[in-house]
Amino acid sequence: MDKKIPYKIYLKEDEIPTQWYNVRADMKNKPAPLLNPATLQPLKAEELEPIFCKELVRQELDNDTRFVDIPEEVLKFYKMYRPSPLVRAYFLEEALGTPAKIYYKFEGNNTSGSHKLNSAIAQAYYAKAQGLKGVTTETGAGQWGTALSMACSYFGLDCQVYMVKCSYEQKPFRREVMRTYGAKVTPSPSNTTEVGKKILAEFPDTTGSLGCAISEAVEAAVTQEGYRYELGSVLNQVLLHQTIIGLEAQAAMKKYDIKPDIVIGCAGGGSNLGGLASPFIGEMLRGEADYKVIAVEPASCPSFTRGKFAYDFCDTGMICPLAKMYTIGSQFIPSASHAGGLRFHGMSTILSQLYADGLFEARAVEQTSVFEAAQLFARVEGTLPAPESSHAIRAAIDEALKCKETGEEKTILFGLTGTGYFDLAAYASYNDGTMSDVIPTDEDIAASLAKLPKVE
Amino acid sequence: MDKKIPYKIYLKEDEIPTQWYNVRADMKNKPAPLLNPATLQPLKAEELEPIFCKELVRQELDNDTRFVDIPEEVLKFYKMYRPSPLVRAYFLEEALGTPAKIYYKFEGNNTSGSHKLNSAIAQAYYAKAQGLKGVTTETGAGQWGTALSMACSYFGLDCQVYMVKCSYEQKPFRREVMRTYGAKVTPSPSNTTEVGKKILAEFPDTTGSLGCAISEAVEAAVTQEGYRYELGSVLNQVLLHQTIIGLEAQAAMKKYDIKPDIVIGCAGGGSNLGGLASPFIGEMLRGEADYKVIAVEPASCPSFTRGKFAYDFCDTGMICPLAKMYTIGSQFIPSASHAGGLRFHGMSTILSQLYADGLFEARAVEQTSVFEAAQLFARVEGTLPAPESSHAIRAAIDEALKCKETGEEKTILFGLTGTGYFDLAAYASYNDGTMSDVIPTDEDIAASLAKLPKVE
Repeated sequence: MDKKIPYKIYLKEDEIPTQWYNVRADMKNKPAPLLNPATLQPLKAEELEPIFCKELVRQELDNDTRFVDIPEEVLKFYKMYRPSPLVRAYFLEEALGTPAKIYYKFEGNNTSGSHKLNSAIAQAYYAKAQGLKGVTTETGAGQWGTALSMACSYFGLDCQVYMVKCSYEQKPFRREVMRTYGAKVTPSPSNTTEVGKKILAEFPDTTGSLGCAISEAVEAAVTQEGYRYELGSVLNQVLLHQTIIGLEAQAAMKKYDIKPDIVIGCAGGGSNLGGLASPFIGEMLRGEADYKVIAVEPASCPSFTRGKFAYDFCDTGMICPLAKMYTIGSQFIPSASHAGGLRFHGMSTILSQLYADGLFEARAVEQTSVFEAAQLFARVEGTLPAPESSHAIRAAIDEALKCKETGEEKTILFGLTGTGYFDLAAYASYNDGTMSDVIPTDEDIAASLAKLPKVE
Repeated sequence: MDKKIPYKIYLKEDEIPTQWYNVRADMKNKPAPLLNPATLQPLKAEELEPIFCKELVRQELDNDTRFVDIPEEVLKFYKMYRPSPLVRAYFLEEALGTPAKIYYKFEGNNTSGSHKLNSAIAQAYYAKAQGLKGVTTETGAGQWGTALSMACSYFGLDCQVYMVKCSYEQKPFRREVMRTYGAKVTPSPSNTTEVGKKILAEFPDTTGSLGCAISEAVEAAVTQEGYRYELGSVLNQVLLHQTIIGLEAQAAMKKYDIKPDIVIGCAGGGSNLGGLASPFIGEMLRGEADYKVIAVEPASCPSFTRGKFAYDFCDTGMICPLAKMYTIGSQFIPSASHAGGLRFHGMSTILSQLYADGLFEARAVEQTSVFEAAQLFARVEGTLPAPESSHAIRAAIDEALKCKETGEEKTILFGLTGTGYFDLAAYASYNDGTMSDVIPTDEDIAASLAKLPKVE
């Protein structure tokens, strides 16, 4: 065991990065613009500003500024739960008997339980700075809703969360955390919006969907004076804010002269992978270094590995803008027995372009193998991981086991995005042996891709 | 704001204390010995060893050794989640507008969610070192059971947890965490023990009690070859292991020349208060310093503030040893509407003696005011506190508000023992406005105290 490197590397508070990194500035092929679903023309700032805060629209469209100053108030809030530790997984290495050196950046040591807070506080800040009364959003599993509730509570903003009805009912504790932070949580679909009423009239027994919750949250934002809508993943602005993860990891590694060979992140909409990996990918784009970057997605929702790089709607309801991304189709619904999060049909446009350009590879993993990795990790590293994060754990273990075979002492870095305290129903199904793997057939995916909108 | 002191003070890993502190060595009046309930004579080591591990019995009875070496394997495990941060509550100070400087030692950044892991890993270690196959225990809210499950998983020990039936049913997620760590969780009363069968025959609809679960766990330990029983609070050995909290806090404060005026801990069985405060009380006993130490207990279960210092049974079933302690009577059952933990009728014998000798003061707080403090803390400091810990938060806020009145810049240290992720049913009742305060009448307590066993 390398004695010089501690189990946990903490930056000092004055070493927390003071700027976010915008990988778009280093991309030769810029991510494709969002299109207006009505006109199929690139969306302009003035079209986005009724929905999103002004400064966030600016960040969304800014492909050029390499570093963006983190506002003082956001930096102050970051000190509540950052720097997050970079952990050397000595216990995991020992359990695997691998010569690989494994590190993970742990983003779960805050009450939202995930990295989502990094962008939530930034988005809440810009809403406050613009003089808004409040914001609206949707939440599925609840991590983003919790993070935004915490951030809004800090700035005294009203926070209205549309929570997918089945989650609202199955995860009452997530709901209570949000309420403790003062958020108004409404099960979606609801009677508080026109779109909700319409869906309820048509499907009175529906348990809701993320697409529907998005539609309600957007309607609530544009119909209330002084409100805007905020979103926790996929968008360029979110990836920008999340780069605090990768920048901190780089700074911590630099302190001990550590250079990763492999960087691994789970990928749903891309906020975690983009946040962790894009500072490393930036070095690759600038020709300064080379890394093997791996995106890990669920086999039940495989947008990178089995999807198509094409324009598609960001929501099931087909009212949101079109984005050019790896997608398995906005009408694709992952199996209900898929427990591990990362259910979005598409992917960040930035990551999609980088993937198309060969900057990283992607792999899909099955959920029983993900929970096997999660259980091992919990037992030896002591932290119960979120199912999402456990996709990255699975890949990190697989890479470390390859090193065991070859004898290579590779350095592996992965993102541990959060904790699994609110995902214990999924753990229960694994503990009970009732969890199964559901992989869409080629026909399923072809049928879904056949419904892609015709653009270009 | 004092710029020099960071939001979080972390010791380096090689600064983690390598010895526990045994306050009994500095006590002129030693804690009274445990008595055999049959003979009313002090329990000897050989009577305790069929129940507890040999080394733990030695620690239980050792009133003389001031410092006890922490075994190497335990120190290694501590590095999984320690050092725990000493947090400067700048956000709370700002919200209160107080000149007081508030610090808290946060023990919740581990999957068990509380300080209980500090003793669990030590107890599991000694069981392993003795060559045992496994251990048994009981759990109510589930923190101790989770901690012991994690510790046993690490050492490959079998862990059998008797979980109070109503908690087993109401807290399925706690149960799943334990199962994820490989523990066998049995709802108590059960048909797996004679005492369980007897209780079930008499009260088929009972939802269980901690006293009953203790009885089952002890029976399971003594009737299985290679098993012992382990307990998460009250005992001298547990207070010894928990001093890692106070010793780390002292070391962290020393780095920045901080000296607390007031030290505050919540008190149920005493493991947290004893662990945090006894290194400070030791300085008082040795005449080196003076602190105002405050024990905070629930008004619904007020052993220090309204109990009697007398010998009493440690369990409702009256089969466990008698301890001389502040007690409101082993037959006292806190109101079912008491949500905030700390339900034990008695108190650590060490703390009881120290309290009798005037080393600290105690106060009782009502649960609605506890949850009010918890909510404020969650919102401004970003961590959702355990209800138990929130008793200490309540007192810390009250002391800080006194400073606001007087203008005194006192330094306050309190113990934040854990997080509230598994206590959201209690938060829900606070959020819904259905929580009420239930304070036992003088008659209730007199009736309970009238049933104390006659000793001496």
